[in-house]
Amino acid sequence: MPHITLPDGAPGIVGPMLAYPETEKHLNGLAEALLRGESSLTPAERETIATYVSSGNECFFCTNAHAATARHLLGEDRGIVDAVLAGPDSAPISGKMRALLEIAGKVRRDGRTVGADDVARAREAGADDKAIHDTVLIAAAFCMFNRYVDGLATWAPQPLEAYHEIGQQLAEKGYLHSIR
Amino acid sequence: MPHITLPDGAPGIVGPMLAYPETEKHLNGLAEALLRGESSLTPAERETIATYVSSGNECFFCTNAHAATARHLLGEDRGIVDAVLAGPDSAPISGKMRALLEIAGKVRRDGRTVGADDVARAREAGADDKAIHDTVLIAAAFCMFNRYVDGLATWAPQPLEAYHEIGQQLAEKGYLHSIR
Repeated sequence: MPHITLPDGAPGIVGPMLAYPETEKHLNGLAEALLRGESSLTPAERETIATYVSSGNECFFCTNAHAATARHLLGEDRGIVDAVLAGPDSAPISGKMRALLEIAGKVRRDGRTVGADDVARAREAGADDKAIHDTVLIAAAFCMFNRYVDGLATWAPQPLEAYHEIGQQLAEKGYLHSIR
Repeated sequence: MPHITLPDGAPGIVGPMLAYPETEKHLNGLAEALLRGESSLTPAERETIATYVSSGNECFFCTNAHAATARHLLGEDRGIVDAVLAGPDSAPISGKMRALLEIAGKVRRDGRTVGADDVARAREAGADDKAIHDTVLIAAAFCMFNRYVDGLATWAPQPLEAYHEIGQQLAEKGYLHSIR
């Protein structure tokens, strides 16, 4: 049971977003700008980073919602998501994505552990300032979203099929229409 | 040196906020709503929670900026900030604040560790749903802000006097005018 009164049947972050619209609009505005706005990273790459961080934080709702979104955006390459979750080292991804996931994993644990060498590796693999910025902020933002979802003990649907529809909605409509 | 190119002399989070306005507006919008908007917690109480979380994450810039803001808001009770940083158990604060700081500390480490007993203690001490919600989201949001600041290796002024002005500005003008 959630720690505070939330609308019945609203999954994960949707509950506190519906109940507290004064912060919802900024949270969804941030997600839209960060995951769908202009960037040198594709929306699929950014959703994959979000999924990887949420999985590291063991947030069941966020991991499954964003994995489903990334799969929808990737289409026939959707297997990349599970490969990344099994371990970026052996996943069929670019050197750039491998280096950025390494940075995201360090930000998730402690921002201070990102080294100049990590950033140099990402740059050599083709990452520009915006890609590095977005990776750091996506990892940081999902450390917030994951804690918001789990710190309030929100309800998460258990059958994984429930996340297909959430992922399709987020992939097709983005975050500004996600909870209405 | 920061990991990406940022405006010279902009302290802490101000650098990436100036360089990336597309996310800045949502980050400051969230901070304003969460720390200054309507709540059953005072702005001083909310800034104290933000300081406590930033200190736990050892983010030098955020700890000093928000400690200075909380001190400014507290006026002659400003000693509360250092007492909380030394340990909430012996700080001269209400039972409600003590219980909320306990929740904030747990959210900081892992949202899943917040128990029904923690929330019951906060309620018995007078916290309502909004206070519990805001505490969880402040703790979660500062896990983001701290990682954004440190994951990009932003520049932080070293002399603590530099934070007096930052704190005064944030206390008097809030977050929507903070970087201009």
